[in-house]
Amino acid sequence: MNIIKTIAEMREEARENARRDASVGFVPTMGALHEGHVSLMRRSLEDNDVTVASIFVNPTQFNEQDDFDKYPRTFEQDCEILEAAGVDTLFAPEAEEMYHPRHQTSVAVAQLADHLCGISRGRRHFMGVCTVVSKLFNCVQPTRAYFGQKDAQQALIIQRMVIDLNFPVEIVVCPIVREKDGLAMSSRNRRIADDLRDSALTLVRSFGYACGMLKDGERDAQTLINGMMEFILRDRRVEVDYVSIVSPETLEDVATVDDFSLIAGAILIGDVRLIDNILVTPEGPARGQIEFI
Amino acid sequence: MNIIKTIAEMREEARENARRDASVGFVPTMGALHEGHVSLMRRSLEDNDVTVASIFVNPTQFNEQDDFDKYPRTFEQDCEILEAAGVDTLFAPEAEEMYHPRHQTSVAVAQLADHLCGISRGRRHFMGVCTVVSKLFNCVQPTRAYFGQKDAQQALIIQRMVIDLNFPVEIVVCPIVREKDGLAMSSRNRRIADDLRDSALTLVRSFGYACGMLKDGERDAQTLINGMMEFILRDRRVEVDYVSIVSPETLEDVATVDDFSLIAGAILIGDVRLIDNILVTPEGPARGQIEFI
Repeated sequence: MNIIKTIAEMREEARENARRDASVGFVPTMGALHEGHVSLMRRSLEDNDVTVASIFVNPTQFNEQDDFDKYPRTFEQDCEILEAAGVDTLFAPEAEEMYHPRHQTSVAVAQLADHLCGISRGRRHFMGVCTVVSKLFNCVQPTRAYFGQKDAQQALIIQRMVIDLNFPVEIVVCPIVREKDGLAMSSRNRRIADDLRDSALTLVRSFGYACGMLKDGERDAQTLINGMMEFILRDRRVEVDYVSIVSPETLEDVATVDDFSLIAGAILIGDVRLIDNILVTPEGPARGQIEFI
Repeated sequence: MNIIKTIAEMREEARENARRDASVGFVPTMGALHEGHVSLMRRSLEDNDVTVASIFVNPTQFNEQDDFDKYPRTFEQDCEILEAAGVDTLFAPEAEEMYHPRHQTSVAVAQLADHLCGISRGRRHFMGVCTVVSKLFNCVQPTRAYFGQKDAQQALIIQRMVIDLNFPVEIVVCPIVREKDGLAMSSRNRRIADDLRDSALTLVRSFGYACGMLKDGERDAQTLINGMMEFILRDRRVEVDYVSIVSPETLEDVATVDDFSLIAGAILIGDVRLIDNILVTPEGPARGQIEFI
């Protein structure tokens, strides 16, 4: 695997790929790789001539220095995982390479960022994401880029940005990968204390609870949300950031679940913030989503 | 000359250019072409294998509907000019092709937009410029893009944006082209009533006046500005939007002209807004700028 640290080198490789008309799959990550990331790499390797992964813990998308500092960094291990997966190139620039001292340009998606995590993490979060993804796209110049459905809002915002700014990139959103017990894979999971591991499951279990209510004929979003909130807060070690039921296209709250709807939530387990989501229909989980027994 | 109206076609041509490793020069315009534009085309034709011009009167960079409506549109004539210059491809999309109904993404350069025209035209102006230039870059995928020094702030903002977002594009800024009498070429000049033509010259003449003061040893920016203001306002048909002396790098006001400084101004002649600028040193006009006798 070719490890590239500078933008100039990455650009040279991108140009060479364009010259030989090679399709390039790109998986941007913040490292601390897990099976969810690997599923994106696998998909990219299937779809493209060349696969580029990036590892860059982007300072501008963290609203708290503490969260940035505590974000897991496992570079050696990440390299082994990428190598084993068969990734061709790793782009891993330092922050100084990515942000010029006089950097002052930002990319923002307006309405879609005004919901869910955009409220709790602030507008700067998705502005940071869009800015760094634009930068990475311009460095790597991919044919396709792969994002996980776990960060549903992020995936939607990136898709919107790509359409709006005419990036010549196809965005591929891949299903959530879960632990055996249902917990959505996340780099942050390794920060959950062992004795709180079970509490981390309350969010996905509350989705199961909501799907049970749906199966019983409940369609009213607020009633479903109240049910989920009550379910989660039975565990006193869990704090709820939000639980919402929204349109999967606009992320606006829906009043009733009478079409595809996205149930999305964020909880705090100690100081670890976890998010998860599930696409549902009035009958329960949509096809390809987790099935609750 | 190949005239392209859709993004898909433009992208296909861009891909073909990359495949055969052709260097692509790009001159984005809003049409109503004049000798200033042609100088950019000529430079691009010299520097690159392929030259692409665009004509798109971008609605999002006008803060007044009236200014947008009155912006000169001379498509047939523009095509003849481009053809005669030897331009290979004209990209001329309609507004509906460029802006999706749910468009909500913007690109903004912060500090540099907080000065000069960014104050009088509002922050949305340069946000509109940066957004549309990003879109055009992604459609055309040029090697180099050409901008006129007449819009000095715009050129600087685009340069900053390209560095900050890592666009693989080299920005080339070309000198102001002037009428014989010194008036900076502008698409808006054709909207100046004949009897006000002479008043339009007050701005560039005030630069000459300031250069005279510089030659006489005056260095204090406010004194120079006062002199220019007084000079311009002797003509009662002219309204001044601003006259500023700023750092050509940061666009921040300078207190004294003891290094390269940018004198920039905007005036109103009837309902026509005109801008102009000149780079000076403590001795007078910098090399390559207009010489005042």
